[in-house]
Parts: sequence; C-alpha cells; structure tokens
Amino acid sequence: MKLQIFDSTLRDGAQGANISFSVEDKVKVIEELDKLGVDFIEAGNPYSNPAEMQFFQRIRGMKLQNAQIVAFGSTRRKGVPAAEDANLKSLLAAGTDYVAIFGKSHIRHATDVLKATPEENLEMIYDSVRFLASQGKQVIFDAEHFFDGYKTDETYAMAALARAAEAGAYCLCLCDTNGGIFPDEAYRITRAVCERFPDVIVAIHCHNDGGLAVADSIEAVKAGAKQVQGTFLGFGERCGNTNLSTVICNLQLKRGYECIPPENLKDVYGCAMAIAETANTAVPDNQPYIGMNAFAHKAGMHADGVLKYSSSFEHIDPAIIGNKRKFLLSEISGKSAIYDKLKSYFPSLDKNGREMGEIVAALKERALAGYQYEAAEASFVLLVEKILGKYTNSFDLISYKIINEQPAIEGKVASAIVKIRVNGVTKIAASDGEGPVHAMDLALRAALADFYPEIARISLTDFKVRVLDSAKATAAKVRVLITTADSADSWTTVGVSEDVIEASWIALTDSIDYMLMRRR
Amino acid sequence: MKLQIFDSTLRDGAQGANISFSVEDKVKVIEELDKLGVDFIEAGNPYSNPAEMQFFQRIRGMKLQNAQIVAFGSTRRKGVPAAEDANLKSLLAAGTDYVAIFGKSHIRHATDVLKATPEENLEMIYDSVRFLASQGKQVIFDAEHFFDGYKTDETYAMAALARAAEAGAYCLCLCDTNGGIFPDEAYRITRAVCERFPDVIVAIHCHNDGGLAVADSIEAVKAGAKQVQGTFLGFGERCGNTNLSTVICNLQLKRGYECIPPENLKDVYGCAMAIAETANTAVPDNQPYIGMNAFAHKAGMHADGVLKYSSSFEHIDPAIIGNKRKFLLSEISGKSAIYDKLKSYFPSLDKNGREMGEIVAALKERALAGYQYEAAEASFVLLVEKILGKYTNSFDLISYKIINEQPAIEGKVASAIVKIRVNGVTKIAASDGEGPVHAMDLALRAALADFYPEIARISLTDFKVRVLDSAKATAAKVRVLITTADSADSWTTVGVSEDVIEASWIALTDSIDYMLMRRR
Repeated sequence: MKLQIFDSTLRDGAQGANISFSVEDKVKVIEELDKLGVDFIEAGNPYSNPAEMQFFQRIRGMKLQNAQIVAFGSTRRKGVPAAEDANLKSLLAAGTDYVAIFGKSHIRHATDVLKATPEENLEMIYDSVRFLASQGKQVIFDAEHFFDGYKTDETYAMAALARAAEAGAYCLCLCDTNGGIFPDEAYRITRAVCERFPDVIVAIHCHNDGGLAVADSIEAVKAGAKQVQGTFLGFGERCGNTNLSTVICNLQLKRGYECIPPENLKDVYGCAMAIAETANTAVPDNQPYIGMNAFAHKAGMHADGVLKYSSSFEHIDPAIIGNKRKFLLSEISGKSAIYDKLKSYFPSLDKNGREMGEIVAALKERALAGYQYEAAEASFVLLVEKILGKYTNSFDLISYKIINEQPAIEGKVASAIVKIRVNGVTKIAASDGEGPVHAMDLALRAALADFYPEIARISLTDFKVRVLDSAKATAAKVRVLITTADSADSWTTVGVSEDVIEASWIALTDSIDYMLMRRR
Repeated sequence: MKLQIFDSTLRDGAQGANISFSVEDKVKVIEELDKLGVDFIEAGNPYSNPAEMQFFQRIRGMKLQNAQIVAFGSTRRKGVPAAEDANLKSLLAAGTDYVAIFGKSHIRHATDVLKATPEENLEMIYDSVRFLASQGKQVIFDAEHFFDGYKTDETYAMAALARAAEAGAYCLCLCDTNGGIFPDEAYRITRAVCERFPDVIVAIHCHNDGGLAVADSIEAVKAGAKQVQGTFLGFGERCGNTNLSTVICNLQLKRGYECIPPENLKDVYGCAMAIAETANTAVPDNQPYIGMNAFAHKAGMHADGVLKYSSSFEHIDPAIIGNKRKFLLSEISGKSAIYDKLKSYFPSLDKNGREMGEIVAALKERALAGYQYEAAEASFVLLVEKILGKYTNSFDLISYKIINEQPAIEGKVASAIVKIRVNGVTKIAASDGEGPVHAMDLALRAALADFYPEIARISLTDFKVRVLDSAKATAAKVRVLITTADSADSWTTVGVSEDVIEASWIALTDSIDYMLMRRR
C-alpha cells in the first residue's frame, strides 16, 4: 500500500539546535529528497522573515520529479478576517500548490495560550482552511498538541479536526507536539480519527522526546494514517522529529508499504549522507539502517555467525538500502569492499595480490591519521596510484608563504606567494584573497596556468572544514574537503593537518592532480 | 508495580564500537548504577579472558545497596558434561549469586551455527541451567534470537524456554538479538511466553536496529515481562541495546511502574553524565530525557508558550530527573526567550524597553551575517553589553601578522606577531605554532600576560570551524566557535569572517573579554 512521506527537514528540522541551512543548502536538500522520491517537502515559513519568502520565489522554477513543495504557516489571528491575515497572505504569495497550517486542537492551549474562546479557535481553523482552499490550495491542517488535547478533551480535539475537514482540508495531521505519547496511545487515538474521517488523509507527526517517535508513527500507520511526517535524519527541536530514514526502511522492508519508489531504496543511505554533509553534521554511528556501525560486526563469534548464516546478526541485508556490512577487525572482508571500489579504476588489480595488502594497510594507517575517503574518492584513487607506482605528480612545491594581517591592505587580509617547478621550469606567483586559503588557491592557480591552461576551466564548488579532536583546541587536527568541478564532472579531495592551511593545500593539490590524471 | 532493571553496560555495552572500560572505570559504573538503584548489573564474561576473572575477584568485596552483580557466559559445549565445562566452571568461580547464560532458541541457529541436533541443543540448555542451579546460583537464561526463532518455529523456541524452566531457571530472558522486531510482535510473543510460564520471571532484551528497542521493551512489559535488560546510555554493538535511561523515565513517570526507588529519579541525569564521562563519550544532545537539548527551546513562539504554560512544549518537568530547561538564542527566538536568558546577567533590563528592541534587531542582523549565538552565550552577553553601553574592551589591537610557510622552520609551519595596547601601554609579542590559529592564540596570550596574569589560568577546551555557504569554496565565510574554561566554569564564543584567522581572532578576543568582564 502506498504511504505518503512528508519531510520537514527544512522547516521543523531547522528548529534543531545547531542546524541551519543556507539558500544553497536548502536547494541541495530539496534535490536529494526529490530524487529519493518523498511526496512532500516542507520548505519553510514564508511569513517568518523576508529571506524565507525570497527562498520560495527562488525555488518556484525548480523542476521536481516526485515531490510537492509545501509552505508552512498558521491559522489566522484572532479577530482578523482570513483574507486580511498577513500570514495567510504570505502563504498564497509563496506560490506552492500545498500549504500546511497549524492550529490549536487542545482546549487549554486555545484558552490559555491563544487567549481565545473555544468557539473562536474553531472558527479560526475553519476560516483559515476555507480561505486557502478557496484560493485553490491543498491544505494540510496540523492539529498541534492533538494527542494531549484528545486525552484532555476528546470532543473538542475532534471538533477542531471536524472544522478543518468541513472547510475542505486535504489532510488532517495529528501532532504529538511534546513528543510524549506511547505507541499504544498513538494507535488508539489515530484509529478513532480515521474511523471518524474516512474520506480525508490522516497524517502522523511525532517528536522523539520519549524515544518513541518511530514506533508511534508505525502504530499510527497500522491504525490507518496514510502520511508520515518527520525529518530525514531526525533533526528537530529538543530530541528531534520522527526519523524518516528509519520509518521508511522499517515500513517498506518489513511491512510492505510503499513509502518511496522501490528502485530508490538503495539510495536511502546515500541520501542520508548527502543531507548530513549539507547540514555539516555527522550521522550518528549507531543510527538504525544508515549509521556507519549499523551493520558492523566485531571479529569472532558474531562475524563468524554472519558469514555462516547472514541473518545471524543482521535484521536486513545492508545492500538493500545502500549501506554496507563491516567487520571492525577483519582485514579479509575489508579487502573485498575496497577491491570492489577500485576495480573500475584499476582493472588489472589483483584482489589477492601483494598490492591489495599494501592498499588495505595504507588505508588503515591513513584512517588513524584522520583521513576519511568515503566522501573523497579522488584522493583515495591518487593514494592507490602512488602505491601502484603509477602516480606522476603535476608539479613540485618549492615553497609557499602565506601572510595574514590586520589592518588589512586595500581591504585584503591575506596574501600568498607560491613557488613551484614543472619539468625543470620554476615559476613563482602571488595573490591576495579573502582569507589565507583563498589567497593560496589563487596564487597556486596563477603559478600553474602557464603549464596547464586547462586549470582555468575548473572551479572549486565546495569547501568544508571539520575539526577532529576539538578538545585540543587551536592545536587540533583539521580535515578539509574540497569539491572541484569542470563542465562534465566533479570530484572531492581531502587533506588533514594540525594546520588548516596545510590541510587545504593537500586537498587542493590532490584536486589538481586528479584532474590532470583523468585527462591523461 | 515493581519492575526489575538489568543493566549490561559493562558486558553488552562494551561490545559497542569505541566503548571500553578499565577496571577502575568498571568499578565507577557499578557504583553509579547501584546508587541509582538498578537491580542487576551484568559485569562481564569471566571465561573470556583472565583480566575479566580478576575483575570479578576484585569486586567481590564491594558493598552494594541495591544491585546484584551478574556474571555472563554460555550454555555448555556440545558433548562436554556440564560439571566439566570450563565456561560453566568459570561462572562458579566468579562468585556471584546470579549468573546469566545464553543458549540457542532458534532452531536454525542450533543446527546451522552450533551444528547440534535440535535435541542436543535442548539438553545443553537443561544441563547447564540445572548444574548452575544445583550449585546454588540464580540462573538467568538468555534465549538468543528468541523472537526470530519463535517466528520460524514456535514450538522449538518454546521448548528451549521450557527446558530452562524445568531445570530451575530464575528468569527467562527473551532476546531480540538482531534488533529487528516491531512493538506489536514484542507484545504478542512476550504475552504468549508469560501465559505459558506464569511462575518464572520473564525478561526482555532488545537491540535498536530498527530504532524500536525502547518501544519493544515497553510493549513486552505491558505483556507481562517483569525485567527490562539494556544499557544505561544505549551502548552496544551496531545500533546499540535498549536505552535504560529512556525506559526507566518512560515507565516510571508515565506508566506508574517502579523501576528505581522514586527518590532517586532526580539522579537519572547525573548518573547518565557520570557513566558517559567514565566511558569518555558524550551523551548525544538530542537524547530523550538526559540530552543537553532534551528540554531546549528555540523558536520564538515555542519559547513563549513554555513560559506561559509549561506543558506547552514539555512532556515532563525536566527537574524531576535532574535535567534543566534551556532557551536557545537564535534569530527565531522571540523577545520573551531572549529576555529570560538575559535577565540574570542584566537585572535592570526592561522587557518592553527600547533597548530590548535593539537587542532583538541586533540578533537578527548578526544572524544574517552568519553569527549563531545558541551555542555561544558569552559572545551574546558581550554584544548586549555593547548595546547597553556597558562594555569596556580589555585591549586594543594595533596589528597582527601571521605567516604560514612551507618548508617549515624547525618543524613549525606558522608564526604570529601580535601588537596590542592596554591603558596606553603598547606590547608586542610573537609565537610559533602548529597552525596559524594556534600561533596567534599563543602570541596574543603572551602579549596580554603582563597586564592580565589571570590569563594563565584559562585554557581553550574546544575549537570548531564551520564553513557557511561552502559553495563559495575557499572564499566562503567561516564560523568559528571556541570554548574556554577555568577551574570553575566554561564559556563559548563565536566569530565569523571570510578569513578563518579573523573569525578565530574575534572568538578568541571575546573569550578573553568575557573572562575579564566576569572578574570585574
């Protein structure tokens, strides 16, 4: 049975501590989620500030294959006609076909927080949904605090839904706003709603304050909910929202629901990594399904069991969702995975040869030093080239000097001098820049331009810095990831050092080496 | 109703990646869990290596108030009489009153992994339990893969439990070894077991591979299980074991079970922090109940709601378990939340005054420039001081120059010169360092030391870098967060710039300004 997936990473997820997205980040997240095949992407609240509204205008032209963009807002204010309510008008201006508005369904929240009479609140719901529907919008009504409201005053909570339904809501969304309900309550109350409103789509929206959001959502689906709301990685205020990656895998793999197109299941892991990278956050290693250790086995009995009988210690085959089995201490199985990755680059590589042993050993040694090649395949390919003796470097560094100073000189705080040698010819070049890495990047390109004019056709498209072992403070190691693109392709390289400049230098030179290697 | 809590942090928890405990660590964990009031602490497998056995001897003299120590092992080997089985003998030698042994209850695991006949396996279970019971032990029988086994061959899985019960087991523990079951299955199958064995304690032991371990345990308790097994912080292989801190809070606060003595509930948070500290790991910020952000509020509306009516966005009062409510500062914080945060620093601030308006406006403007204050309260307090005209700077920067070069000089790639003025006196100082920020940090401290000797007593404890809008590549803005500590306190400051050095400089000077402000 088809189930709708509604992702609110960009709206409710952005309420999470330390989560924020730039406009470019948001576009990237929308692209990833759409490609995976979710049904709805809640992209923000156009009324909250002008930047959000601009963002809705910016994305209006995006061509999406699967998803509908949803703008989020609230019911009209008390005493203001719907047609004159600034928030409702901003929802129209956002230009989406679908809008979500939240309203009170808990009688005490209507009276104590909103300071409205119970009747007034119901009219606010009715008017708001009616107005938006009359303007051609499909309206998702978010019944805030629905479960707590139902437990306090069942009749009133149901009346709130009824008014939204009468006004033409497309979907009634039951929110466990405080995140405290139990799975059996989720089942019982959702069932009552689905029986009462058989013709409207019922959605479930949970928070994880009791560690039960996924279970609550599963039980609500069993009770008849047709849409699950959450955030792909569980981002969200306090303990986060329902983790959609977990819900999708659970329901699609084990209960036979179709949450996303079946052929896209293998991309769940990749989508999770891309969103985490965009949010500059790491997926917890122990995250169900998508964590780095979700299918990791310690050597010995368990690993042996898995090899004898794969369901010994695995609830699913990790390949189904694009993740991998991992043996934490087993070199042999590590080798298979590495070989798999390399065989397209180096067709003559022997899986059981001496060189594979050296590659596995080098990878372990580099991992200890802080390198991670999962997101930096180009650097890994160069490392293997070096081991195989196939690497030829594009230039020798003689020296660089980067100066950073305050006060700035003509508005520039950084300048760099880079001296290199190519085929016996020495070249020195300089540049200033916005910061030390920028100045170094420009100086290096200037020095190389005479030898490799094609360098003008590549550009750096992404630059990320992560402090490893941040407790060492300013002497900590940093890992720099740089993504470079030309018209046909893009590739990512990595550098690690206690010195952010040196780490950037390593990643920069790898990116140039990789480009030149590919051209050869 | 009393429920037994069985903690396996030291045994199953230690199987988790990156989790290991020294002998002293283990003693500390036992003390913490005993003080909190759990019933059983599984302390290790005495057969696995001599160090584990020594550990059991070491703790034999420990005086515990609440908990029983449990030694863990397995059923006898095929073909070896129980009295001669080295593993069972080591369980006796461990000297605990309670022992836990795991055995196969899934027919395919008996035949395919153990290579025993179905009957042989049942006899191994019976003999092992019988032998240990005859030696005066209380035996907990861990039925490995019980749920999957029950779904594959219900009769055989039940027979395994029956043999353990007939042999005198104290407790039958139902293990979801692969962590893949759903709450409704946990309920149904546990119920069948409890009906079949009304006189034996039934325990539930789950893994979190589907993100459902807590929910599964709750449903099993509803079905009649009298003991919940897990690890206090959810440590464990792959996705971890049932998180006991979550289960205890859920069941005791919301379902009326007594998991720990009620007067100890307020210590749940402290116990979690102590165990995390001992394991040298951090509790995830979004962990239910005990996470740093479990009761943190960001959005203006939400924070406002909590102040008006505390159950608006909190499922429990955080003080009950020893945690605290927290308001995060961000561009979407409302005036109430900002005021609430500031009133302890600035008691005379008027919530409805002109200055509050300026503060809210400044916060939004800074957010557009890339500043985030939710993790950097010290910088926010300094910003407010500036707006209120109360700020006095600790020093003036005249200039700095930071040089980064390859090849390195005597192993150092970076050097810095910093020139400052304090009360009309100029001072210049220099340092080299591991990287440019490190060199600058040391040079600044050297320059300030004459004026502010107390600077020697603070140290930087955390350093984070985040590239904002990374698509601008090396010219992108970066946000630097620095945490500084002295013996009594720690504080975090923030700086933003296209230049990582300048961003670090801003955060560094804020951290010094803040320290000096507090001393005044």
